[in-house]
Amino acid sequence: MQRTEIATLGEFGLIDHLAKEIKLTQPSSLKGVGDDAAVIDNAGKRTLVTTDLLLEGIHFDLTYVPLKHLGYKAAIVNFSDIYAMNGRPQQITVSLGISKRFSVEDLELFYEGLMLACEIYGVDIVGGDTTSSLTGFTISITCIGYADEKDIVYRDGAKNTDLICVSGDLGAAYMGLQLLEREKSVFGGSNSPQPDFAGKEYLLERQLKPEARKDIPALLAENGIKPTAMIDVSDGVSSDIMHICKQSDVGCVIYEERLPVDYQTAMMAETFSMNVTTVALNGGEDYELLFTVPLADHERVSSLPGIHVIGHITKKENGCNLITRDGTEMELKAQGWNHLRE
Amino acid sequence: MQRTEIATLGEFGLIDHLAKEIKLTQPSSLKGVGDDAAVIDNAGKRTLVTTDLLLEGIHFDLTYVPLKHLGYKAAIVNFSDIYAMNGRPQQITVSLGISKRFSVEDLELFYEGLMLACEIYGVDIVGGDTTSSLTGFTISITCIGYADEKDIVYRDGAKNTDLICVSGDLGAAYMGLQLLEREKSVFGGSNSPQPDFAGKEYLLERQLKPEARKDIPALLAENGIKPTAMIDVSDGVSSDIMHICKQSDVGCVIYEERLPVDYQTAMMAETFSMNVTTVALNGGEDYELLFTVPLADHERVSSLPGIHVIGHITKKENGCNLITRDGTEMELKAQGWNHLRE
Repeated sequence: MQRTEIATLGEFGLIDHLAKEIKLTQPSSLKGVGDDAAVIDNAGKRTLVTTDLLLEGIHFDLTYVPLKHLGYKAAIVNFSDIYAMNGRPQQITVSLGISKRFSVEDLELFYEGLMLACEIYGVDIVGGDTTSSLTGFTISITCIGYADEKDIVYRDGAKNTDLICVSGDLGAAYMGLQLLEREKSVFGGSNSPQPDFAGKEYLLERQLKPEARKDIPALLAENGIKPTAMIDVSDGVSSDIMHICKQSDVGCVIYEERLPVDYQTAMMAETFSMNVTTVALNGGEDYELLFTVPLADHERVSSLPGIHVIGHITKKENGCNLITRDGTEMELKAQGWNHLRE
Repeated sequence: MQRTEIATLGEFGLIDHLAKEIKLTQPSSLKGVGDDAAVIDNAGKRTLVTTDLLLEGIHFDLTYVPLKHLGYKAAIVNFSDIYAMNGRPQQITVSLGISKRFSVEDLELFYEGLMLACEIYGVDIVGGDTTSSLTGFTISITCIGYADEKDIVYRDGAKNTDLICVSGDLGAAYMGLQLLEREKSVFGGSNSPQPDFAGKEYLLERQLKPEARKDIPALLAENGIKPTAMIDVSDGVSSDIMHICKQSDVGCVIYEERLPVDYQTAMMAETFSMNVTTVALNGGEDYELLFTVPLADHERVSSLPGIHVIGHITKKENGCNLITRDGTEMELKAQGWNHLRE
């Protein structure tokens, strides 16, 4: 029998490969694989479903991630997917695989973080599954959300000349991760003093206790703006804008000088001798919302606090490009997940 | 800090412990943790949500479980939970953690089984998450189902004098597992001939390719019977009837002589010198439906093909008991999961 290594396809290639055989047969299945969440019909109202699997050693390292923060983040990453559909998260199920090295108190801490996130975002824990694990800690969370049919924003609605916008700033969560990784290796087995995180709190917070942008859909709605396409920034802006472009059958231009980067992120990139633009474009785990709006909304969207217009949609033939500070055009590369995690 | 070993609470103890802090706050969250599926309000219609986490080495052993069968079974166990609420499964999300030892072809086989189950049961795959795993194969499936409000059957409705019924027969999947485990140890590293499974096909099928009892809710509805409580037999009848009794605040009596056991199961139990009643009560993974009906339905339910009345509900004070063939009454023990898997 033939053996094709998964690495030859990559994460998204693998998903595409497996998903191409999947046919939707139920009238209630409005949208399946391929967006931030699935969309299910419920008599006019829509049920949104999204799920995330987090594995120890791949998505988190318990040597520097406190369990309470992990619980919080595990919930947030799912809420973020529902907001990215312009929906409202309402329920989650939580499945855990637990090895013997965990105590009941460890799980209590994890649940504290989970429940704190649920309380803040108005979400209920309605079920799950708990099982022993022979290996690491496994977390699988599914989030159910709701939206009116007319409000849902998919990834495939971006049109030529639309503006590309992003909330907040980029790359900080990734620099937080680099910082934690460095401290881990510095402190491994040594008697060094406590790590000094002074002046880097924002980076750590973005990595360890991210928030979902619940406020952005509300802000846009108040100002009469409905995005034409939207996605949350989990893999990195570069990878995520390419998802929008692929599904919308368009190209894009991103301006390097427009990428919103926090001061701490820029400082830290310099310390690590990393290109700050690469960090902002490919860092990932920002959980900001990346969306497109019609050009006619330019004035309205530009005036909104915390929203940055970083580029615009082009015709498909133009491809996906970055215009650097010196005016050079170069092809955007979706390094995202493969780049960072392998 | 205090450290309480998880083993001191056990699986259900741990779930109770963690779940007791969970409060439902959303008007749409009608039923949370504690039944086969969560129940969510959707303008009169109800959305059901259930989820299962399957871990290599805990729930399956790839040395004798073909990947296609694993895909089929992973879907079925979730459908079964929705039928146990008297609902209809319609969508699933599938999250996989995959290690490098898997090839694309391996995953194709897994998906073939998954899609076959979905096709047969009329269910759509609408999303999921795929990630690398440093260790074993991880499968997390969430199933969304639907039901009319009036049709949903919970675990907490059993009343004193209700009859306890079960579909199909019991213990075969567990004997199938024993058989596979034996062949695995016999064949480990040896040059023995092919294992001889002749006359044991039913046991293997029940273990490797179980079916969910889609037909039972339909059969009951056709005959005007609505169960007062229902659960699917995943941990074993003994453990599962105790879930119904605990949530319904009642006791029960099960008659040993009424337990439906297939000929192959009985033969195999003898070969392994196991007590066939213990196998039927505690084997688990039967994915049959265990339900209670009012005493007044006795005649109607007894006449249904493949339905067995195995006991009745009593007052809580009487506890949960087994009446053996010789008339002795002994307390039911829920060995279920802990007994078999540790």
